[in-house]
Amino acid sequence: MKEKFQEFSTFLNSNSKTMFTYKTIAKRLPILQWWPNYTSEDCIGDLLAGITVGLTLIPQSMAYSALAGLPPQQGLYGSFIGSLMYVFLGTCKEVPMGPTAIVSLMTYNTLHGLGPVYGTLLCFLTGIIQLFMGVVGLGFLIDFISGPVNSGFTSAVAILIVTSQIKDLIGIKAAGTTMSDMIMSISKDICNFKLGDTLFGLICIIVILLLRRIALCQIGPKDNNLRTKFQKCMNRFMWLIGTFRNSIVVIVGSYVSYLYISSEGHDVTSDDIPPIPFKVVGKIPSGLPAFGLPQFSVTYDNGTTTEFFEMVSKIGSGVIVLPIIGLIETISICKTFADGKPVDATQELLATGLCNIGNSFFHAYPGSGSFSRSAVTAASGVRTPMEGLYAGVLVIIALLFCTPYLYYIPKSSLAAIIIAAVIFMVEVRVVRPIYRSKKSDLIPGLATFFACLVLPLEIGVLIGIGLNLVSILYHAARPKLLIEVHKTRDGINYLMVTPDRCLVFPSVDYVRNLVMKHSLKRELPVVIDCSHIYGADFTAAKVIEMLTQDFSKRGQALFFFNLKPSVVAVFEGVQPKGFITFYHRHDLDHLFQRWKEQRRQIEDQQAD
Amino acid sequence: MKEKFQEFSTFLNSNSKTMFTYKTIAKRLPILQWWPNYTSEDCIGDLLAGITVGLTLIPQSMAYSALAGLPPQQGLYGSFIGSLMYVFLGTCKEVPMGPTAIVSLMTYNTLHGLGPVYGTLLCFLTGIIQLFMGVVGLGFLIDFISGPVNSGFTSAVAILIVTSQIKDLIGIKAAGTTMSDMIMSISKDICNFKLGDTLFGLICIIVILLLRRIALCQIGPKDNNLRTKFQKCMNRFMWLIGTFRNSIVVIVGSYVSYLYISSEGHDVTSDDIPPIPFKVVGKIPSGLPAFGLPQFSVTYDNGTTTEFFEMVSKIGSGVIVLPIIGLIETISICKTFADGKPVDATQELLATGLCNIGNSFFHAYPGSGSFSRSAVTAASGVRTPMEGLYAGVLVIIALLFCTPYLYYIPKSSLAAIIIAAVIFMVEVRVVRPIYRSKKSDLIPGLATFFACLVLPLEIGVLIGIGLNLVSILYHAARPKLLIEVHKTRDGINYLMVTPDRCLVFPSVDYVRNLVMKHSLKRELPVVIDCSHIYGADFTAAKVIEMLTQDFSKRGQALFFFNLKPSVVAVFEGVQPKGFITFYHRHDLDHLFQRWKEQRRQIEDQQAD
Repeated sequence: MKEKFQEFSTFLNSNSKTMFTYKTIAKRLPILQWWPNYTSEDCIGDLLAGITVGLTLIPQSMAYSALAGLPPQQGLYGSFIGSLMYVFLGTCKEVPMGPTAIVSLMTYNTLHGLGPVYGTLLCFLTGIIQLFMGVVGLGFLIDFISGPVNSGFTSAVAILIVTSQIKDLIGIKAAGTTMSDMIMSISKDICNFKLGDTLFGLICIIVILLLRRIALCQIGPKDNNLRTKFQKCMNRFMWLIGTFRNSIVVIVGSYVSYLYISSEGHDVTSDDIPPIPFKVVGKIPSGLPAFGLPQFSVTYDNGTTTEFFEMVSKIGSGVIVLPIIGLIETISICKTFADGKPVDATQELLATGLCNIGNSFFHAYPGSGSFSRSAVTAASGVRTPMEGLYAGVLVIIALLFCTPYLYYIPKSSLAAIIIAAVIFMVEVRVVRPIYRSKKSDLIPGLATFFACLVLPLEIGVLIGIGLNLVSILYHAARPKLLIEVHKTRDGINYLMVTPDRCLVFPSVDYVRNLVMKHSLKRELPVVIDCSHIYGADFTAAKVIEMLTQDFSKRGQALFFFNLKPSVVAVFEGVQPKGFITFYHRHDLDHLFQRWKEQRRQIEDQQAD
Repeated sequence: MKEKFQEFSTFLNSNSKTMFTYKTIAKRLPILQWWPNYTSEDCIGDLLAGITVGLTLIPQSMAYSALAGLPPQQGLYGSFIGSLMYVFLGTCKEVPMGPTAIVSLMTYNTLHGLGPVYGTLLCFLTGIIQLFMGVVGLGFLIDFISGPVNSGFTSAVAILIVTSQIKDLIGIKAAGTTMSDMIMSISKDICNFKLGDTLFGLICIIVILLLRRIALCQIGPKDNNLRTKFQKCMNRFMWLIGTFRNSIVVIVGSYVSYLYISSEGHDVTSDDIPPIPFKVVGKIPSGLPAFGLPQFSVTYDNGTTTEFFEMVSKIGSGVIVLPIIGLIETISICKTFADGKPVDATQELLATGLCNIGNSFFHAYPGSGSFSRSAVTAASGVRTPMEGLYAGVLVIIALLFCTPYLYYIPKSSLAAIIIAAVIFMVEVRVVRPIYRSKKSDLIPGLATFFACLVLPLEIGVLIGIGLNLVSILYHAARPKLLIEVHKTRDGINYLMVTPDRCLVFPSVDYVRNLVMKHSLKRELPVVIDCSHIYGADFTAAKVIEMLTQDFSKRGQALFFFNLKPSVVAVFEGVQPKGFITFYHRHDLDHLFQRWKEQRRQIEDQQAD
């Protein structure tokens, strides 16, 4: 196939400078890179991983949908077409597209109860913005989110998600987007907590955490080859029940509520709440959602219509922040699993954008790559992005045939799944290495963490990024100068000044002031070692011109050592007088001599 | 006196770690630095300069006050107490505090017709903000305004000022803060232009420009010593009439209108407009303004009261921008005349802030150092900031005794003074050196220029500064890498990668991707030359850890050469495995050998 395509592309473009080559197309449609070499072994690996992740995806997507304040089926609607599209567009085999904890919380904060129609519009707009960012190459922007800010943000989100799930876990009503709002809201309704939901939820959390530990256990000798067949089987079995922990908890929980509800003789086709001591998901419409453009205007029962721009303004600034947050999550996964290979942020933007647009045609809400499911795919032995196909098909099967069974899922078990997944996102373990490595990096990290808890999430991230950028700007503005007294071979003392980075407008005045101060104090000739100066600008050139003028006015020597030709070109653009550069240390004596002669001539002329 | 003070300070603070020394006090009260050595010669120089600048200040401050949309006396009120205070607080002998073109235009844009009470409140708030910035040490912020942005801003302001003065020059009514507003407004009323004002104004401009040229002329031989007494006298005389050009034009113009008005027999004590073919300044209240706090609330005739916060919100964002713009102007002057000595931006902030607060107690509007008057003081042979005393006293005398004569000053002559002063602020001459030096620096410069013309001034400056900061961040994010194949003394080929600047979060992934790409392509051991890496952060450390892991997984050697101990400490904070640094090139062979042995051991262990 690859050969055929290459022929086709050669046929299309006879000149060699074309952009339309197989390589460029394969870069934008990464399936072309791995499909030609796809083997049956790959297929088996992907099938297993796909089924495993699919079984995680179904309960998770319903849970996250509840977190986003949307009906559970909307999560399922966002879990198949995106997965299928990512097979063709994605570069990272471990990324399963679909609803995630962070994006769901952001969706909840952005929609603040506007409902499913707005959720789908948000999904469409998120896709469009990600696609646009990919097309104009804005993928590099996520480079400006540092590790500490990322950790602070993720940790704060995890805590917010746990707090937001408490209401479902204990069966009360609560709302709010910031920590304080949520706590206030919970404390108001805490007296109405349901014992049934609480007990059920806590048991689910404990079971999930125990199963998670079991998956990590290994019995028998350390070396796999030395283990007996039974030991190997047991290990495999423990891994399986550990990996399917969410599905197991949901299935067992649903069975319990099924027994309860059928013993009460409740009619599950009615809209009434079943008379049992805990809440269940309830009716979910059967079958696939209708395909179609998202709604760009809403007409209410009373005849009023909300137009597109009004809808967007109701959604607010989240429409800009959500695409970036989703991208950060996807890219973080790619980087974690890339095995050191470069991550193509632009391609991931395009892929995530198109997947979200595709999802929005099936009434979904925004999604991205999910860290917890990526860990599952990686552990299940995934080989290529083809895994998404099987996961997607599984969700389609669930929607077509299993919705009657989804009725019985206890809400508190879904809350338990989320809580058990996100508590590991609180990155306390990252604090010590940061402290050991660079204490000042704790500032943006902790600032992001607390700001995200107290303020709206997007403001919190912006504060962290802002602090980071300020520190970069500060470093550009305040270079370090090494100032030493050196001696030439002829024994002339001189002041050697070595700035450690480039000279640009915010730093050059500072450098000049320091040079002036020390040169006035020591009254020695000055040599500026420019080995580390990799760049300069017009402002720097002007200040250097003033510096050379001041030195020549005072009759003090000033030379520039080891200045790069590109920087010399910038400095000479302002045509400075008395600007002398040299590149070998032994030229210095000669330079001093020549300079003294020139001075003498000038002084003689003035005396005449 | 100095000795006495030192004794006093020693008496106060017996321990040596005190902050309250003579030096620190003299830093904040710079008069203590020069007063002990003040001579009678200094006194004569300052007296001459003070009188010269005072005679420039009186017509200029009235003209700028009109530019700010305020009554002419408010400019005079802002020209004495600030000058007197600056004697004690200022570091730069050439700075005469008072109304300036840029600050007046900003005041006009900020007040948009709110009137003198708000002007005084703005002056007070400007002072408070400048003082606050000085106290918390925010003076460094102006380092972030690059040369091209400064030039673009100044040029745009000059053009805006000329446009805003056209209305007074041709005697029509017009308003507006941006270029397009002004042109629209002028074009609406252009048909009502007054021939008298226009002719008078144009003649004034021509005369001022001619006198300005005369001041630069020198007759006789080049060497001053060879000139005859007559030639010296003539040169001095020409310099004098050139320097006093504004006063001369105003005095002659006023005399013409006095003759006109008295020939018409008009009563100058009435409020009627005199029946002459051009507008005059009219009645100015005689005497010094009453001393008192600025008004923090306004009660209108109809009984409604506007409280402080409402007043501030009416003034708007200008209250933040104006102090910074004023400071930029003052600092630019200090830098120009500092003769290479460091400029204490903090002290200038404190001084300008206190001067503005002082001015606001006398019903003034905001002021700063003025470029045009600084040139006059410098040319008049100023010796110390004491010059401000004489200038201030002259303004006080004018207010006490000369207000009846100020009645006759033609408005168009004041407009002519402004136009003739600011047209030289359009820095076309700066374009060529920037183009020669660094073409890309034209972008922020031109962007600032056009943005300031089209958009509100503060937005224009912010766009320019933003572009500059983006370029700094881009440079931090995208270092240049030199990648070469080198040979050790034993003949082993290796890849030498030399990044040219520090590794921080926005750049480290980019560097890692490049290193991975080239190391995978060439399959050679890699040495990263860290000579230019002066700093790193936690994110960089994490990525370096991943890089070393990837290399050791692939069995490819990776060494770090010449890494600074401070950076090693940051990298070792994350406890990377297989992280090897060396500092001498001849260690390399030894390192390769040891590394190969280690690999062999690991491979043997794996094979067992």
